[in-house]
Amino acid sequence: MRFDEAYSGNVFIGSHKSYEESKVVLYGMPMDWTVSYRPGSRFGPTRIREVSIGLEEYSPYLDRELEDVAYFDAGDIPLPFGNAQRSIDMIEEYVDDLLKDEKFPLGMGGEHLVSWPVMKAMAKKYPNLAIIHMDAHTDLRVEYEGEPLSHSTPIRKIAEHIGPENVYSFGIRSGMKEEFQWAKENGMHISKFEVLEPLKEILPKLAGRPVYVTIDIDVLDPAHAPGTGTVDAGGITSKELLASIHEIARSNVNVVGGDLVEVAPIYDNSEQTANTASKLIREMMLGWVK
Amino acid sequence: MRFDEAYSGNVFIGSHKSYEESKVVLYGMPMDWTVSYRPGSRFGPTRIREVSIGLEEYSPYLDRELEDVAYFDAGDIPLPFGNAQRSIDMIEEYVDDLLKDEKFPLGMGGEHLVSWPVMKAMAKKYPNLAIIHMDAHTDLRVEYEGEPLSHSTPIRKIAEHIGPENVYSFGIRSGMKEEFQWAKENGMHISKFEVLEPLKEILPKLAGRPVYVTIDIDVLDPAHAPGTGTVDAGGITSKELLASIHEIARSNVNVVGGDLVEVAPIYDNSEQTANTASKLIREMMLGWVK
Amino acid sequence: MRFDEAYSGNVFIGSHKSYEESKVVLYGMPMDWTVSYRPGSRFGPTRIREVSIGLEEYSPYLDRELEDVAYFDAGDIPLPFGNAQRSIDMIEEYVDDLLKDEKFPLGMGGEHLVSWPVMKAMAKKYPNLAIIHMDAHTDLRVEYEGEPLSHSTPIRKIAEHIGPENVYSFGIRSGMKEEFQWAKENGMHISKFEVLEPLKEILPKLAGRPVYVTIDIDVLDPAHAPGTGTVDAGGITSKELLASIHEIARSNVNVVGGDLVEVAPIYDNSEQTANTASKLIREMMLGWVK
Amino acid sequence: MRFDEAYSGNVFIGSHKSYEESKVVLYGMPMDWTVSYRPGSRFGPTRIREVSIGLEEYSPYLDRELEDVAYFDAGDIPLPFGNAQRSIDMIEEYVDDLLKDEKFPLGMGGEHLVSWPVMKAMAKKYPNLAIIHMDAHTDLRVEYEGEPLSHSTPIRKIAEHIGPENVYSFGIRSGMKEEFQWAKENGMHISKFEVLEPLKEILPKLAGRPVYVTIDIDVLDPAHAPGTGTVDAGGITSKELLASIHEIARSNVNVVGGDLVEVAPIYDNSEQTANTASKLIREMMLGWVK
Amino acid sequence: MRFDEAYSGNVFIGSHKSYEESKVVLYGMPMDWTVSYRPGSRFGPTRIREVSIGLEEYSPYLDRELEDVAYFDAGDIPLPFGNAQRSIDMIEEYVDDLLKDEKFPLGMGGEHLVSWPVMKAMAKKYPNLAIIHMDAHTDLRVEYEGEPLSHSTPIRKIAEHIGPENVYSFGIRSGMKEEFQWAKENGMHISKFEVLEPLKEILPKLAGRPVYVTIDIDVLDPAHAPGTGTVDAGGITSKELLASIHEIARSNVNVVGGDLVEVAPIYDNSEQTANTASKLIREMMLGWVK
Amino acid sequence: MRFDEAYSGNVFIGSHKSYEESKVVLYGMPMDWTVSYRPGSRFGPTRIREVSIGLEEYSPYLDRELEDVAYFDAGDIPLPFGNAQRSIDMIEEYVDDLLKDEKFPLGMGGEHLVSWPVMKAMAKKYPNLAIIHMDAHTDLRVEYEGEPLSHSTPIRKIAEHIGPENVYSFGIRSGMKEEFQWAKENGMHISKFEVLEPLKEILPKLAGRPVYVTIDIDVLDPAHAPGTGTVDAGGITSKELLASIHEIARSNVNVVGGDLVEVAPIYDNSEQTANTASKLIREMMLGWVK
Repeated sequence: MRFDEAYSGNVFIGSHKSYEESKVVLYGMPMDWTVSYRPGSRFGPTRIREVSIGLEEYSPYLDRELEDVAYFDAGDIPLPFGNAQRSIDMIEEYVDDLLKDEKFPLGMGGEHLVSWPVMKAMAKKYPNLAIIHMDAHTDLRVEYEGEPLSHSTPIRKIAEHIGPENVYSFGIRSGMKEEFQWAKENGMHISKFEVLEPLKEILPKLAGRPVYVTIDIDVLDPAHAPGTGTVDAGGITSKELLASIHEIARSNVNVVGGDLVEVAPIYDNSEQTANTASKLIREMMLGWVK
Repeated sequence: MRFDEAYSGNVFIGSHKSYEESKVVLYGMPMDWTVSYRPGSRFGPTRIREVSIGLEEYSPYLDRELEDVAYFDAGDIPLPFGNAQRSIDMIEEYVDDLLKDEKFPLGMGGEHLVSWPVMKAMAKKYPNLAIIHMDAHTDLRVEYEGEPLSHSTPIRKIAEHIGPENVYSFGIRSGMKEEFQWAKENGMHISKFEVLEPLKEILPKLAGRPVYVTIDIDVLDPAHAPGTGTVDAGGITSKELLASIHEIARSNVNVVGGDLVEVAPIYDNSEQTANTASKLIREMMLGWVK
Repeated sequence: MRFDEAYSGNVFIGSHKSYEESKVVLYGMPMDWTVSYRPGSRFGPTRIREVSIGLEEYSPYLDRELEDVAYFDAGDIPLPFGNAQRSIDMIEEYVDDLLKDEKFPLGMGGEHLVSWPVMKAMAKKYPNLAIIHMDAHTDLRVEYEGEPLSHSTPIRKIAEHIGPENVYSFGIRSGMKEEFQWAKENGMHISKFEVLEPLKEILPKLAGRPVYVTIDIDVLDPAHAPGTGTVDAGGITSKELLASIHEIARSNVNVVGGDLVEVAPIYDNSEQTANTASKLIREMMLGWVK
Repeated sequence: MRFDEAYSGNVFIGSHKSYEESKVVLYGMPMDWTVSYRPGSRFGPTRIREVSIGLEEYSPYLDRELEDVAYFDAGDIPLPFGNAQRSIDMIEEYVDDLLKDEKFPLGMGGEHLVSWPVMKAMAKKYPNLAIIHMDAHTDLRVEYEGEPLSHSTPIRKIAEHIGPENVYSFGIRSGMKEEFQWAKENGMHISKFEVLEPLKEILPKLAGRPVYVTIDIDVLDPAHAPGTGTVDAGGITSKELLASIHEIARSNVNVVGGDLVEVAPIYDNSEQTANTASKLIREMMLGWVK
Repeated sequence: MRFDEAYSGNVFIGSHKSYEESKVVLYGMPMDWTVSYRPGSRFGPTRIREVSIGLEEYSPYLDRELEDVAYFDAGDIPLPFGNAQRSIDMIEEYVDDLLKDEKFPLGMGGEHLVSWPVMKAMAKKYPNLAIIHMDAHTDLRVEYEGEPLSHSTPIRKIAEHIGPENVYSFGIRSGMKEEFQWAKENGMHISKFEVLEPLKEILPKLAGRPVYVTIDIDVLDPAHAPGTGTVDAGGITSKELLASIHEIARSNVNVVGGDLVEVAPIYDNSEQTANTASKLIREMMLGWVK
Repeated sequence: MRFDEAYSGNVFIGSHKSYEESKVVLYGMPMDWTVSYRPGSRFGPTRIREVSIGLEEYSPYLDRELEDVAYFDAGDIPLPFGNAQRSIDMIEEYVDDLLKDEKFPLGMGGEHLVSWPVMKAMAKKYPNLAIIHMDAHTDLRVEYEGEPLSHSTPIRKIAEHIGPENVYSFGIRSGMKEEFQWAKENGMHISKFEVLEPLKEILPKLAGRPVYVTIDIDVLDPAHAPGTGTVDAGGITSKELLASIHEIARSNVNVVGGDLVEVAPIYDNSEQTANTASKLIREMMLGWVK
């Protein structure tokens, strides 16, 4: 019986012991204060880690095991409750540090606004960056009821930052008329309703480029992801999302980071969404990090 | 700050202020007293309105916004608890009044029996009326354990009223042997299991005719609509139901009214079914009312 | 059948039609962005109104009916998601307006921080104001992990604003050592664990003074109020809280306003907490407004 | 291994095999169609039986075991969904039959209206009958929104049938002003808020008389019985209700039948209410049947 | 009114009265003590029976009714809590008895380990037995953390017992690398991810052979079966599983028994999984027993 | 930003970093395989730790902080699923090791059977040991349906091991007649229904003796602890249980260890029971360890 170190129960399965020897860093961004509808995604990262013990370390899809990828679960960034601006600054600084150390950042949300500072940091490191965005919602608002820091705005912010032509959205089935128009007029790609088929067309165009992939779990149909803030009927299945992750893995793009956001455990019967999220995290690591 | 009128929180998003200037009238029929299994659909209309605030007013499927349709949410008909006959009479009279005012009635149940007085009123107004019925169940019983007023009987009643050859059922996957036989012997159309493909075949036959569309939410698979009284495996997806609504929108039939019934919030994890219902209501309005 | 005005379903039972002729104004403050643990109280006011339809308008405790009190449900203040400072400013301005019109403000939270701007507005109107505070938590922090705007700070803010000797806390069973010490050293009253008995001792001392009463629903034991952000064992029963409200009603203090905060419907099995809250609101109105 | 008779899983623990040799008959009245708020009590009897397997057959309160009472679980009366009048007639006839066979009827609801035909049948058999009624609500309405058959009316009906002076209500904390007035003017006993202490005063007055006891589970505080249609704060504890049952057991009244109504499993987290109900049923049998 | 036999509420709909005159025996194996993740499947059989009352006795898929199949619900085997070895021995003996009486055993789990003693008994009766196995998991472990009796091992045990070349797994999407390798090296068939299409290829090869079919409900996607111990994204739909059962029904294999395991009601929102399971049981009976 | 050690999120708040410098060792026993009713307590320790972040480190009851007690959260003992005998052996050996190192063992269950090996180890270390047992159930069975290793037997086992006269049970309200008789005939103390008052009488008799305290969370009323396997009405409040822990703290007994068992998160609405358990653990540490 060993009692010689503090108990460390809630880490994603198979996490390596040391930051230094790891390639991938998994981290949580427990923020949900700007959501306009149902909050609760602050508890997403914790629950995803917790249910990961029910997961096998081997992927029969990719014939690869977690021990083949050196990764480290760094826990959650301690974000200040209710302060959106300071949270965003902390996240950007955090990812800057990871990139300085040549890590592959793999983030877990939290609300989708957390992806904005991450993508900003990525763009500093990778000047030619492209974004692949899977979501039910456009997230292209300039503001939400007067607030420029809102979970409805991250894609607009990054699109304006790196150029709309470098952002590719898939699975979109909800948004304001103005958002779709803005995308159209500014050359931003939006695939409505579907993910896998349009992705097959786009990926060759991105060959060789550094790509950051941001996935809002609500790109899934509510049947497959009830545990999220804003459910929206008519989404894709978990099978299709897995296939899309694998499609990216098989492509010639250079994935340099990614995130999975908006898992909200309180609405999640049977921990179905958290389980799905932990499987997606495993496949993202095994598929995208060589 | 304005305090000059009573708060009106629970109205379907985008409802117009006045009955007179509206084309469509949205109304609830909060009745669930004849159901043979799990009650609770009386709270369906209230919850559908409540969650509609999470919905965008724009449909990327139809490229149309709610402000393009003049509609008015008239609230729930105050039905007498536990009195089926009087409830039915009140509904019929209510819809008679709507039709007198040349409105497009869009109803929310409540149990499926509420559709019977609505369809009866529609048939008075539109002599050549055809019914499109999407459901997991035949609803063709003459009675249920001795009761002629039961949620298992509305389609039988309207079929006998306007002639079975004018009723088209889709997605049916449950019923007594006698019900299927009766339909067959009397020339009533039943498409088992599927909705979209058979609908594509039937719609051209109904071109130009006035059509009332009644949708029981349990035509969806339980994965897509757990919040209903009687769940039944093997149903269609919300994607397919959306596509079916759009197929009708694109066809040459003259939709003159419709309803969506059997949403029961108490069984509805994450308010998934209510959210889906509110999206379906939006698409029905945007697609069917020119 | 009347269709001549917009449906107004979700108003607290018995609300009067007009702001002008009302003495009491009931309003919601749907804010939960600074909570350090579980969010969700933004939906409290909506759910309290919704379940109020299950309530009788007559109180057998006070032998008085809601029609005896002219009150108006003004709905929720439209607070900006995730912006604590602007929300607080809006609330203060809102209550300033109510007080200018000589109304009795009765607020529903939302997190407890919303009470801070209300109490500040009250103190402007009533220079000799005393605060009665019922809560499981001291709420006396200066800041929470660096944030001065936090749901752990409202009582500290008002205590520093009007003087700690004018604030009386009851039922407290959780807090940091420093918070209890600060109260002790600064002459602020704290009754630990109990509400009714110490209240009986304090009320005579406040006779004739204007008093604002702020109630955090978590002063109740989790058995009586599971639907809140931070449950804490060892609390009082709903019977005791009702008796405490009635004790204030029978006393000689001049209640000039009040609130009930931290009801979070998502954690609320059987809508028990929301139902209790709606009963408490009824008793507060019938007991405190002459 | 015996396969020679049909499986009989869902019977209250310890039920005897034969109706003839039993003194007590336990039966369910699965009706909930006239409730004005949340339905679902139709599933009460089934769930109470189901969870009874978690119960011991011995009562340490009464030092008596279920095998000391010859009782038979007769299952649910097959009531017609949605037909209140016919349901009531069936129940009355059912209890008439039980009484003809000299049985002690012990009923499980179902909504409270089911008690009306039972009490009517009891009054035929026992001319000097008194009623002990424990409830949160007066149930003294003449009608509910026009319906004379409503779960708000059973006590009024029996009071008018046998004389209000023979009806004793306890624990009442909700009702219309008119209901309390009617009781007062007509000499009907109502103990507000409390059960045990007033019961101790009343029981000696009923010594020797035949008494029927009807218990609405919502006499308990929502903390103790969340699984019911209409929860109402400020109720008694399960400890107090058990003590009240035991107080009746120790008294000199002649209990001739009883019921426990309004258990609604769908709102019942952790099956707490159903478990409590099954324990109450056990104590009613062991305490009231000599 | 008949009171002459004990109430028998919780039997699968349409069960025959007598074991002797029945061809099929339906029985439950309420065991969940070796599961490594979430327990609760011990309540599966009870809940499946309970919800079967919401099911029609007629299958529109197969145009056949339950009254066409003589079957008897024998209830649950009374397994000893927490004793895996003794439970397994009891199950084997139980099925031996059924087979001696020439019955068709149709089992309901319980965890998947219960299938091991059933399949062992089947192999004694049918020397040429083949196994069709539908599951998310390989279940091919030799042991789980040192325990050879684990819900991760039943397929390994039967594969070693009758030869891996006689076992056909479908829908597998989770397992250790070693398990997939063992299957490959030993000639055991595994269809990854899919069921229906590979089944169409395999069934002709099994023509005429006695086949036992064991279905773990988690072969379904979590959207279709949240009520199970270990949910795993990327599964098949209930429509596909129904089609697979019908494919077997139409084939030339000789189905000699089957089971459906791992339904865990506590995680099952809206009783969706239990309802699906009861429909699957109906189709298995109507399709596989001539 | 520090990334230099593995994330350690799920530890009870305020746990010290090192085993060596700690006096108290907190550990989990995640076993639930012998329970006869609802399993799930295996997840108790994990959830108690998780919700402890919502707890203050200071106790206003005892005016003491967690930093005043050197304690170490050693995590869960890795018990083998479904193997009761081996689990019990591992626990005994684990506690033997703790006692060899002069630690104060503070255990979290799991089912109550886990307390048996702990108490056995305590008795080896402390020959004059007395047991204080708070529970709804006697737990005095020799076996449960043939199994001597059952959650219904631990108190019988320890009573026979150290002598029934050294075991004191409080709050008992359920058990078989034989169990109560055995206690009576063998001089074992049982206080029925109540805890605090009888404890005040017994504690002086135990002055100076080493005492182990085992608390089954179901000694609380279901209203206060719905999240447990077997709920039983008529229990004590969390206020009374806190007072009982404090009564022991103030007494002259020498508490040498303790445990809190049977918290089952899956039945625990709003995480109420887990929160209460984490508060109880805090008070046990602050009150019992000098």
